Amino acid sequence: MKFLRYGPIGGEKPGYLDQEGNIRDLSRLITDFTPETVNCEQLAALAARDLSDLPIVDPGTRIGPCVGAARNFYAVGLNYARHARETNNPEPKEPVLFSKSTSCICGPNDPIILPRGSVKTDWEVELGIIIGRPCSYVTKDEALDYVAGFCTINDVSERAYQIERGGQWIKGKSAPNFGPIGPWLVTPDEAGAPQNLTLKLSVNGETVQNSSTADMIFPVAEIISYMSGFMRLMPGDIIATGTPEGVGMGLTPQRFLNAGDVVELSVEGLGTQRQTVIN
Amino acid sequence: MKFLRYGPIGGEKPGYLDQEGNIRDLSRLITDFTPETVNCEQLAALAARDLSDLPIVDPGTRIGPCVGAARNFYAVGLNYARHARETNNPEPKEPVLFSKSTSCICGPNDPIILPRGSVKTDWEVELGIIIGRPCSYVTKDEALDYVAGFCTINDVSERAYQIERGGQWIKGKSAPNFGPIGPWLVTPDEAGAPQNLTLKLSVNGETVQNSSTADMIFPVAEIISYMSGFMRLMPGDIIATGTPEGVGMGLTPQRFLNAGDVVELSVEGLGTQRQTVIN
Repeated sequence: MKFLRYGPIGGEKPGYLDQEGNIRDLSRLITDFTPETVNCEQLAALAARDLSDLPIVDPGTRIGPCVGAARNFYAVGLNYARHARETNNPEPKEPVLFSKSTSCICGPNDPIILPRGSVKTDWEVELGIIIGRPCSYVTKDEALDYVAGFCTINDVSERAYQIERGGQWIKGKSAPNFGPIGPWLVTPDEAGAPQNLTLKLSVNGETVQNSSTADMIFPVAEIISYMSGFMRLMPGDIIATGTPEGVGMGLTPQRFLNAGDVVELSVEGLGTQRQTVIN
Repeated sequence: MKFLRYGPIGGEKPGYLDQEGNIRDLSRLITDFTPETVNCEQLAALAARDLSDLPIVDPGTRIGPCVGAARNFYAVGLNYARHARETNNPEPKEPVLFSKSTSCICGPNDPIILPRGSVKTDWEVELGIIIGRPCSYVTKDEALDYVAGFCTINDVSERAYQIERGGQWIKGKSAPNFGPIGPWLVTPDEAGAPQNLTLKLSVNGETVQNSSTADMIFPVAEIISYMSGFMRLMPGDIIATGTPEGVGMGLTPQRFLNAGDVVELSVEGLGTQRQTVIN
């Protein structure tokens, strides 16, 4: 199933994408997709129903972030070997964890807003995990049972704020609209195995990232198992699993986003995002 | 006003502490204190009502975290000069930001749970800020207008996970029950100016931290103004503003928490926490 949220900012309703590509309104059956409701059991219960006569939504409707009111937006750094090299970092021996403010979360096609004074705003296409069960101290073998779904994420990053302003990366990862997630939460049965998905990102039509989740240093199951030893993962938590090579900081010469640029990105089977950069 | 949440874990109700020290049930007037309701306007509206005939709650009731369902738990590192020195860090030139998982949040008297394999679990008494209005790009002069209240926080920290496991501090700051907040959200009119409050922490009755918010490198107003340039702060967001000297990592020899230890801490006017350490 492909679950989604649609409607104006702050007023999103739950929906799903049917086999014909129509958005259908789920708000008769569930209030919204939030940490209270984004869990494996509720999503399975929805999937088991006959939803074919639910109202079809205007296809021009805005798509919101596929999870609302999220309580944690975690991210893994340097999780692709060639990306670690392009940013002059050694390959990590264990996953590097950081977080993004949840207030950066936005819809997949909402604009990227350059923070005031930004000169190094960069892109990062990533496979996103959405957790579906409370998860503490789980093994790698169990880990995928805790996934509600997967989604496309652009882990938008201001490199000067991230690296040159003292301290921790969160400073460069958290500005408003730095976290487009979606368009869909795709359940694991439909997304398939997560370690062989193509990731692509283009800027103004030019492909700059083109890789596969097969190149992750720490695969999805290992990330979840590892993280669950440091914090209790909860339903609705979002984990961005790292970006492959081809970010602006890694290009020669370096290249960053300017107002008017258009970023398009996708993770295979999880849908496409399209963002216009604005001041 | 001193607002609080009481009752069993996950089933907390809203309340307040009256002038006689009674907890009174506010659940006729507000569903809970969460990001949807912890805002300056709603708290002011509650304070303006006659609450004196609301039911008194059993004084033995558990106190929960003073904000529920929080969406961000930010923290400032190395914000007291003597603490920076005791941890062998230079005094930062601008605030160091990191975050704690929101799933670590617990009540002020809930146990500190040692994570599996932990040998360096440490304490940190801190002044907590709870944001009460959406807050983006605000000046220092305006910043305190965005505060819903203040609270006591123990920023419990596993030093090996924080420093020796690669990457960012979040790894050592996020285990279940590493974030006792409360007992109360104290509104600014009652808490008074935040830069002259005594902070104290004892382990098994021995005082190990005893300082004042007057020694902060970056005061509350500057922290809020600075952070608001990097992320949109939202109602219900919690900010731990750093700890003074006297953490276990800074002692000679170093000293960390063991099962059975009792930690007591307070920030002047904001209430006391008491935690027993368990495995």
